[in-house]
Amino acid sequence: MQLHKFVRVLLLLAVLGSTLAVAKDGSGDEQAIRALDAAWSQAAGAKALDKTVSFYADDASLLPSNAPIANGKEAIRAAWGQFMAMPGFSISFAPNKIVVAKSGDLAYEIGTFQSTLNDAQGKPASSAGKYVVNWQKRAGQWKVVADIFNDDK
Amino acid sequence: MQLHKFVRVLLLLAVLGSTLAVAKDGSGDEQAIRALDAAWSQAAGAKALDKTVSFYADDASLLPSNAPIANGKEAIRAAWGQFMAMPGFSISFAPNKIVVAKSGDLAYEIGTFQSTLNDAQGKPASSAGKYVVNWQKRAGQWKVVADIFNDDK
Repeated sequence: MQLHKFVRVLLLLAVLGSTLAVAKDGSGDEQAIRALDAAWSQAAGAKALDKTVSFYADDASLLPSNAPIANGKEAIRAAWGQFMAMPGFSISFAPNKIVVAKSGDLAYEIGTFQSTLNDAQGKPASSAGKYVVNWQKRAGQWKVVADIFNDDK
Repeated sequence: MQLHKFVRVLLLLAVLGSTLAVAKDGSGDEQAIRALDAAWSQAAGAKALDKTVSFYADDASLLPSNAPIANGKEAIRAAWGQFMAMPGFSISFAPNKIVVAKSGDLAYEIGTFQSTLNDAQGKPASSAGKYVVNWQKRAGQWKVVADIFNDDK
């Protein structure tokens, strides 16, 4: 009985410890952002324009390579619409690093993407690149507020 | 005398109000980051390599256009050294928007840059672009932790 009680106390401490760890290092927020990234990459890869744009805050900024900044959801929708309309377009991306502010209202992530477009001969040409995305919690929900990327080559 | 006292109370309220405003919206942090940006841009424009690299955290990442990610201060120094060694190199940049986390430990900024390099004929060719820089407070001092940019054209 004594041993049984001791094991239960140990288990309780372990649960409390991991809960506190999640609260302290913000890994709950990090996991929430990772889940959003997975859904966002899938939407973009499937050329689901509405879904792709839904991850941005209304006043977000998209800063594409070799194009002017797109401020606000309408401009961002137009830019993503242009990407998705390019022949042979496909994309996938995922974060390598996510850092969340102690206050849990702001975060940034660094990640990599792979994209494909048809070249001048109509053959698929892949390119690899990297990005930084900033997230802000709006009404309890993480939203993209700044999204910038560039090619590795 | 009554009027005199009234004016003093008004002045006191004004001072208190502005102090509270600074504490609440983090504009003290924003101003600190703007001052760092001004010094950083000046250092980069003057090709002061040590000074330019000093604004980064030891574990920062630089994500340049058309080049791989540079992780850590040594790799960042090498990348900036290559930029500065290009014939006709000059650069200046400044933020348009700075957002600071409520906890005052993380911030991001969106800005624009103008750079010049000599073209194949040795003539100065200017280009304009945009960037996102993430700052993190380390031991009470704001340091760049992620720096990514790309061209407008």
